[in-house]
Amino acid sequence: MALIVQKYGGTSVGSIERIKNVAQRVARFKAQGHQVVVVVSAMTGETNRLIALANEIQSHPDPREMDVLVATGEQVTIALLSMALMEMGLKAKSYTGAQVRILTDTAHTKARILSIDEENLRRDLNAGHVVVVAGFQGVDEKGNITTLGRGGSDTTGVALAAALKADECQIYTDVDGVYTTDPRIVPEARKLKTITFEEMLEMASLGSKVLQIRSVEFAGKYKVKLRVLSSFEEEGEGTLITFEEDAMEQPIISGIAFNRDEAKITVLGVPDRPGIAYAILGPVADANIDVDMIIQNVGADGTTTDFTFTVHRNDFTRAMGILKIVQGTIGAREIKGDDKATKVSLVGVGMRSHSGIASNMFKTLAAEGINIQMISTSEIKISVVIDEKYLELAVRVLHKAFNLDQAA
Amino acid sequence: MALIVQKYGGTSVGSIERIKNVAQRVARFKAQGHQVVVVVSAMTGETNRLIALANEIQSHPDPREMDVLVATGEQVTIALLSMALMEMGLKAKSYTGAQVRILTDTAHTKARILSIDEENLRRDLNAGHVVVVAGFQGVDEKGNITTLGRGGSDTTGVALAAALKADECQIYTDVDGVYTTDPRIVPEARKLKTITFEEMLEMASLGSKVLQIRSVEFAGKYKVKLRVLSSFEEEGEGTLITFEEDAMEQPIISGIAFNRDEAKITVLGVPDRPGIAYAILGPVADANIDVDMIIQNVGADGTTTDFTFTVHRNDFTRAMGILKIVQGTIGAREIKGDDKATKVSLVGVGMRSHSGIASNMFKTLAAEGINIQMISTSEIKISVVIDEKYLELAVRVLHKAFNLDQAA
Repeated sequence: MALIVQKYGGTSVGSIERIKNVAQRVARFKAQGHQVVVVVSAMTGETNRLIALANEIQSHPDPREMDVLVATGEQVTIALLSMALMEMGLKAKSYTGAQVRILTDTAHTKARILSIDEENLRRDLNAGHVVVVAGFQGVDEKGNITTLGRGGSDTTGVALAAALKADECQIYTDVDGVYTTDPRIVPEARKLKTITFEEMLEMASLGSKVLQIRSVEFAGKYKVKLRVLSSFEEEGEGTLITFEEDAMEQPIISGIAFNRDEAKITVLGVPDRPGIAYAILGPVADANIDVDMIIQNVGADGTTTDFTFTVHRNDFTRAMGILKIVQGTIGAREIKGDDKATKVSLVGVGMRSHSGIASNMFKTLAAEGINIQMISTSEIKISVVIDEKYLELAVRVLHKAFNLDQAA
Repeated sequence: MALIVQKYGGTSVGSIERIKNVAQRVARFKAQGHQVVVVVSAMTGETNRLIALANEIQSHPDPREMDVLVATGEQVTIALLSMALMEMGLKAKSYTGAQVRILTDTAHTKARILSIDEENLRRDLNAGHVVVVAGFQGVDEKGNITTLGRGGSDTTGVALAAALKADECQIYTDVDGVYTTDPRIVPEARKLKTITFEEMLEMASLGSKVLQIRSVEFAGKYKVKLRVLSSFEEEGEGTLITFEEDAMEQPIISGIAFNRDEAKITVLGVPDRPGIAYAILGPVADANIDVDMIIQNVGADGTTTDFTFTVHRNDFTRAMGILKIVQGTIGAREIKGDDKATKVSLVGVGMRSHSGIASNMFKTLAAEGINIQMISTSEIKISVVIDEKYLELAVRVLHKAFNLDQAA
């Protein structure tokens, strides 16, 4: 008998029929003798419907009231799923975030979990109940309803698994696991049986949006065994996210992530002195623009330098505008922009102990005539920025070059 | 400066436009220097939409989960109205029933309020906030979400007014007050400036469904000044519901109520012995059928009696079936039923100190050839059951006979 936390996203509970399907899956686990905690999101479209109502009233809706509003989405789902479980003859009980007492800070619309009171849940589980918890929401110390931000239901699932010391946290989505790369680009892409937390973090932040990154960090921190599965398939093991030490025979490279939405901005000929990076990126950060890659080269003349960074394409025009304004202050010779950049990344913990990965990557791209515009590396990742027209080609040739189509 | 509790029903907050209208009305009261607590229902149709979802899953939805589900309806409204108030430059803060801590018993879907913690509300009011509270809902001692049943938002409003010792509780509906009778039947029907609580109770229970009866009882018990107004008119004093002692010149008759949905059942020739009323009505009550009027006549022979009662027409067939079964046990000669009965009632506290009201009523009906089938009286009410075909005629001639078309 194990204690399992299962999280179902909005599409998995997007209709009455699908809610009944979830109930059936839960019933199968109960029948195997497991204790089950289910975390659910709002039904697909519901959160957007509520946000649209708010936007009809306020162009910038009050964050506290926004949380009161959207928290109703998951509350509807927990009630309906509990009913569906009871209709199947199971004992079930729903909990809002406040009822569990998922205590968060007061950062409305993007709150962070501080603690979870698991006592009542455990009592219900021991009494044979399926416990159904509203994802995405909590309550602050003063009793205000808070939400964790988009995708926060994953975090709720992992946090509950940590608090209850669950044997496994299963995240059900509309994909059946984590792939070596996007199968729409490389038909040979292979589903990974396991992936390490660190790789998962790199994959997620690079655009393989299977799991919310915060939930992966959380799982890593509390050593929660995390598994990604499809809610639309009866069987399947999904992908287990492991700690590195568990992985005896980790392949060198686990996957290839990419991001189409990059835009590149280069500040040419700035004085090479302390504080210049802050002088450039400070105003960008103040405008709430997220910066992804940052590279600084030594300038050719030894007194000036070139500074390049990437932002989301949606922020490109705004970021260029800001830099045009500060160009005089920082004494830059020129500002150049390119909103057709894409990023391709090799990810794998194995590359730590294997040399030659980077050179193999560069050789493979060169053989296809693909020019590399930027390079950035971490312990378990090598990212390059290339022209977007080469994206699919680059992913395909790298997938083949690193034998990702062959089972590890 | 007064403290006013305003309650707006589902149609009054049935769209974003109407929610903005409510915000404007609240703003006018704030501009006059008043403190305002607003109690709101779910937007029209929302509660029914949620119930329909539940019914797709369970034919008899679990009451606890039903409350979790439908309580989201008012939660949406409080958030949206608070946003609308802020958009107008006011300070506003929403409260769910649980956040106020409207403590109820655990009778899910029909809970009763036990106590209200008004401390936080008062602090917010003193800080200049408009306080927006979800009607219809509360929380039990264990933190379970409860609801007060249909129309419970009126009760929330009155209970909050009592707890806060508000100067007035204003109930905004789609009618602009309480009338002497239904204006669709008697065009000369007049809006009453005042009506006593006792009259209102008789009017409400007799089918003039302006206010939920429990809220009127509550208001009477805690001496809350209650006013019914239209949310669709800018001006208007509505109808003030007073305590009898306030009313210096109370008219004899305040109004004529009626109920089209009565069905009459007569049990003929039952032995005239103790316990016979229970023997007849016990099985009916056990079947959850509400009984309205009950009359027992002395039988002609002195040893048997006739027993007549009325039920809602929807329950007529079921009630007849039950009596057919118990007929043998109770030794009744015959069971007769009539599902075409209607009830007409004169209501007025003034009739206590005025004789001749009943005889005037009977004379008026007799002059039109309307046969009276049953008569029942209370301190401030005389009800007669007549054939439904005479209903409109009876209401019109009584309205005229008691000069209800003339201002008091």
